Amino acid sequence: MVPPKSDKGGWVDYRPEIKVLDCTIRDGGLINDHKFTDKFAKGVYDACVAAGVDYIEMGYKTSKRLADPKVSGPWKFCEEEDLRRIVGDNKTDVKISIMADAERCDYQTDILPKKESVVDMVRVACYIHQIPIAVDMVLDAKEKGYETCCNIMAASTIQENDLKEGLKVLAETPVDVVYLVDSFGSLYSEEIRDLTKMYMRYLKESGKQVGAHMHNNQQLAFSNTIEGMIQGANYLDATINGMGRGAGNCHTELLLGFLHNPKFHVRPILKCIQEHLMPLQSEMEWGYQLAYMVTGHLNQHPRAAIKMRAGENKDDYVAFWDQMVGGE
Amino acid sequence: MVPPKSDKGGWVDYRPEIKVLDCTIRDGGLINDHKFTDKFAKGVYDACVAAGVDYIEMGYKTSKRLADPKVSGPWKFCEEEDLRRIVGDNKTDVKISIMADAERCDYQTDILPKKESVVDMVRVACYIHQIPIAVDMVLDAKEKGYETCCNIMAASTIQENDLKEGLKVLAETPVDVVYLVDSFGSLYSEEIRDLTKMYMRYLKESGKQVGAHMHNNQQLAFSNTIEGMIQGANYLDATINGMGRGAGNCHTELLLGFLHNPKFHVRPILKCIQEHLMPLQSEMEWGYQLAYMVTGHLNQHPRAAIKMRAGENKDDYVAFWDQMVGGE
Repeated sequence: MVPPKSDKGGWVDYRPEIKVLDCTIRDGGLINDHKFTDKFAKGVYDACVAAGVDYIEMGYKTSKRLADPKVSGPWKFCEEEDLRRIVGDNKTDVKISIMADAERCDYQTDILPKKESVVDMVRVACYIHQIPIAVDMVLDAKEKGYETCCNIMAASTIQENDLKEGLKVLAETPVDVVYLVDSFGSLYSEEIRDLTKMYMRYLKESGKQVGAHMHNNQQLAFSNTIEGMIQGANYLDATINGMGRGAGNCHTELLLGFLHNPKFHVRPILKCIQEHLMPLQSEMEWGYQLAYMVTGHLNQHPRAAIKMRAGENKDDYVAFWDQMVGGE
Repeated sequence: MVPPKSDKGGWVDYRPEIKVLDCTIRDGGLINDHKFTDKFAKGVYDACVAAGVDYIEMGYKTSKRLADPKVSGPWKFCEEEDLRRIVGDNKTDVKISIMADAERCDYQTDILPKKESVVDMVRVACYIHQIPIAVDMVLDAKEKGYETCCNIMAASTIQENDLKEGLKVLAETPVDVVYLVDSFGSLYSEEIRDLTKMYMRYLKESGKQVGAHMHNNQQLAFSNTIEGMIQGANYLDATINGMGRGAGNCHTELLLGFLHNPKFHVRPILKCIQEHLMPLQSEMEWGYQLAYMVTGHLNQHPRAAIKMRAGENKDDYVAFWDQMVGGE
């Protein structure tokens, strides 16, 4: 009924530049302190390869000053030997990414030169005040030979002028992709549209790509990812079954179902959900849930909701609402 | 960060014409053959009154030739005495609606004159080929003194020319509101935008309102409702906790959280979920689920998914996918 819009990739045509990045293991690891089994990690990796996903993010590169490998799981550190146990030499079309948090990563020493690593892309995550550190991390990774991203977190809390300054700074660096990140799942379609347009305005001329990373607190992760894409974002983050901290993310299976590039396949993702994610659902909670809706609605970090869901009054949404709005 | 858009009702301003219609009891009744207890129905009604909802839809007006009141619950028939047991004389600001399906309702005899009924609005639901019957039902209800809607179901399957003809016919009737209904939950934001614009184009001049009724098969019910609203739809359907057949509907609590009219309140809806809907979740399934995503993605009625979820292989999504796409 709706005519094809082949000028921007529509219902019959598609935009070949679009890349899908699956961050199930990385974002999902925030639920279980990164303690996925090798079987799970391999299952997700194999599914992403079969589904035509472009990048798979295996985890964080966290400083061992801040976390203990005897306590946290391997995907908090992404040691080369752990990665290779899952992906071998990765002789596939999927690229491997890791995330490095500003001020939480000893990047100079812990990130190896590209030629010694199976990793293809380093994604630097930072808050707006950490842009100077993020720039140094991008330069370090670029010099070592990696593709690089900068994910500016919590976009819904950044003053417009600060954000513009940040984008101007990043436009001058060799970073490849800058992500709009709705950490709290609080942005609506028109806000995503306006923000993505702003990112494009500041970054496109210098040849950067824009990415979209959305959370599902208000069931808008998928639709906001589409909105970002419509406005020009070519790097789209998703997780299988939406697995991720709190309300989780844009679902990989929904996104691949939406995209028309014939290289993408939904079936391997459904298989992975059935074989690897469903067995975890009795021990881990993720996905849209009223408590996360409340924090998303109020533009708050989900930590209060996560705490509430782990406590004795996990189903008392009215009390949680009253607590969050400061009433009664 | 995003500037207010007060021209169309934005992040600070709002559009006072917008009406929210809660159809929890009507659409939810499709899951349990309309067998809600009076306590439940009263709980939903009270919550809608407290939340500032504009209309509450209590159920269907089904012919007793087609269904047996000894088998199905009261909200399949909406007898005046059943309605009044819940809403009394409804001395509140919320209006009462009932749904009458084309070819499934003895409207001439079963719908009382308005002055004998607590009902305010009759919503006629039809497929595109039933428009002539729907028009007769609208005329009947209008003559009896009711506000009237026509919900054209399964918009994602209607040929564009047929739809335009249907809208032209409805524009000539006294119907108050014509709804865009995404019965299969298969439409994306750009399709909703184009379709809502078409509805506005054919209906606005004759003073009709446009409504949006969305399903959540691909987690797009809320975002598509927003998209419809942005394009001019002023009647927005939702159900508490998204309760409805299959993947369910746009969540009332999300929609009220989004709308800025100060008459709307989220808290009574959270209270209703906690007290009345959560206790039902062990006996009824609703909401986004992989099986419904598959039918939504394929633009199919959810009946195959509902059947699959009620059967022995309720978690075999790969087999269901293969069955639906006709493969392997």
